[in-house]
Amino acid sequence: MSLLVLGTVALDTVKTPFGSRQRILGGSAAHFSLSARLFTDVHLVAVIGEDFPDRYIKLLKSKGINLDCLIRQEGKTFHWQGEYKGDLNSAFTLNTELGVLACFKPHLAAQQRKIKYVFLANVDPDIQRHLLESLRSPELVGLDSMNYWIHHQRNRLLPVLKKVDLFVANDQEARDLSGEDNLIKAAKYLRSLGPRMILIKKGEHGVLFYSGKYLFALPAFPTDKVIDPTGAGDTFAGGFMGYLARVKKLDAASIKKAIAYGTIAASFNVEGFGHERTLRLTMKCLEARLAQFKTYTKF
Amino acid sequence: MSLLVLGTVALDTVKTPFGSRQRILGGSAAHFSLSARLFTDVHLVAVIGEDFPDRYIKLLKSKGINLDCLIRQEGKTFHWQGEYKGDLNSAFTLNTELGVLACFKPHLAAQQRKIKYVFLANVDPDIQRHLLESLRSPELVGLDSMNYWIHHQRNRLLPVLKKVDLFVANDQEARDLSGEDNLIKAAKYLRSLGPRMILIKKGEHGVLFYSGKYLFALPAFPTDKVIDPTGAGDTFAGGFMGYLARVKKLDAASIKKAIAYGTIAASFNVEGFGHERTLRLTMKCLEARLAQFKTYTKF
Repeated sequence: MSLLVLGTVALDTVKTPFGSRQRILGGSAAHFSLSARLFTDVHLVAVIGEDFPDRYIKLLKSKGINLDCLIRQEGKTFHWQGEYKGDLNSAFTLNTELGVLACFKPHLAAQQRKIKYVFLANVDPDIQRHLLESLRSPELVGLDSMNYWIHHQRNRLLPVLKKVDLFVANDQEARDLSGEDNLIKAAKYLRSLGPRMILIKKGEHGVLFYSGKYLFALPAFPTDKVIDPTGAGDTFAGGFMGYLARVKKLDAASIKKAIAYGTIAASFNVEGFGHERTLRLTMKCLEARLAQFKTYTKF
Repeated sequence: MSLLVLGTVALDTVKTPFGSRQRILGGSAAHFSLSARLFTDVHLVAVIGEDFPDRYIKLLKSKGINLDCLIRQEGKTFHWQGEYKGDLNSAFTLNTELGVLACFKPHLAAQQRKIKYVFLANVDPDIQRHLLESLRSPELVGLDSMNYWIHHQRNRLLPVLKKVDLFVANDQEARDLSGEDNLIKAAKYLRSLGPRMILIKKGEHGVLFYSGKYLFALPAFPTDKVIDPTGAGDTFAGGFMGYLARVKKLDAASIKKAIAYGTIAASFNVEGFGHERTLRLTMKCLEARLAQFKTYTKF
């Protein structure tokens, strides 16, 4: 089953204790796609500016990602600049230049409107709403957001949230949006806002999934090779949604397996700067580490 | 196999968003024992003062805990006063009165010296060393400590750490003692200090275990019923060591099962103030929740 992702394709400038990179391929939809493409065919909806390097377009295409809805507009590509320190759990944003993202209105071709599995990765809630309204009859819509929209655009975020099936948030976002410190309480509250499934990402501490029916908790894949966590959450979501789109089931076993695949994909992502490690990721690497992860967690 | 625990038996005054208790039974060895007694016979080594209520002694005895080495001395019982706020992950210590703990020298009877499974729960490293030296030929010695000793008595802590098999620390303690932010790197460093097994407790985020041979990661049992986390770490250690003392094995399956039992015991502990919930805990409750935990985590 095809999977559509809306989000950002960005140029990232990032510094971690292990080095730095300037204007490399980044953005929520790019990270998501490079992970999801391992499981299913992915259609990427985003905007880039005139400065976006052709080599990155070729690179995404070479991975089989459909770019029919990746539009190039006059102006500059969205640019994020950040730094990670200490335990690398949180990014310090140094600069954000919206560029062409400021006036982005996604436009879907007829083929893409029919896609049933959709992920609204982190981007302005109005853009997410606009895309959601142009879909024919999606079966599973996931949404990610970020603290900026939660704090400053809550009134625009909530109506979109109401219409999706799955909300993916990190622990701080879940706490901020719900006003609950306990994450199970937070997940229960977030369900009352619309989405029937809540997936809370806790970075190095793993993931919590809650629907009325199921409760799952998995640790992160334990690793001491963390070079750059940028995009780990989107890589996780890509693996999770990609697997679900492939199996077309939402039973307990499938959801847990999807979480595990997302976890493993993210564990590779952090081993390199930006997209560098995920780009070289194969299903074989993923399966091998998944087997290892089972021995780490099964009791 | 019998299990010996050295630590504190205290009177705790605690406040959480859900209420408060004054001078209730607490302390590392008390919490540990109330959990470990579900798996094996436990010998508690600690000191109490003249003010320690007889009803708590009866209560510990009624749970089958051997108190031959619980000595009463002139003076006041160790008293800890603390408060939990927000996500309840960290305690704010408001007051600590050492009382009789200030001049405690544990004395073991001949029977206790022969015990093979030993846990040196959090207490002054000199007291831990003193006990360690009086043991005949222990097979498995675990040690817990706290930030106070790590920061102020590192030179007294390190020689004791060198002689034990297992170091149990929370994530912050592991980071502080190792100087490493990444917990796998921290565990590797801590192993170089002596203990062949490192168990890092991450509170609501679960546990990480590392030995040269094995790496395990388990989430905490997800719950929204958290009343008071006091003693959760000691309750975890009690379940972990209690199970190992019962099965007398250190293979991968036993260690993971021990971590799971410790996790479940701790999940009950936080549901009531201090010892209140753990006191009523039965093997039947523990097994039922363990089965539930499996469905939450197995993929």
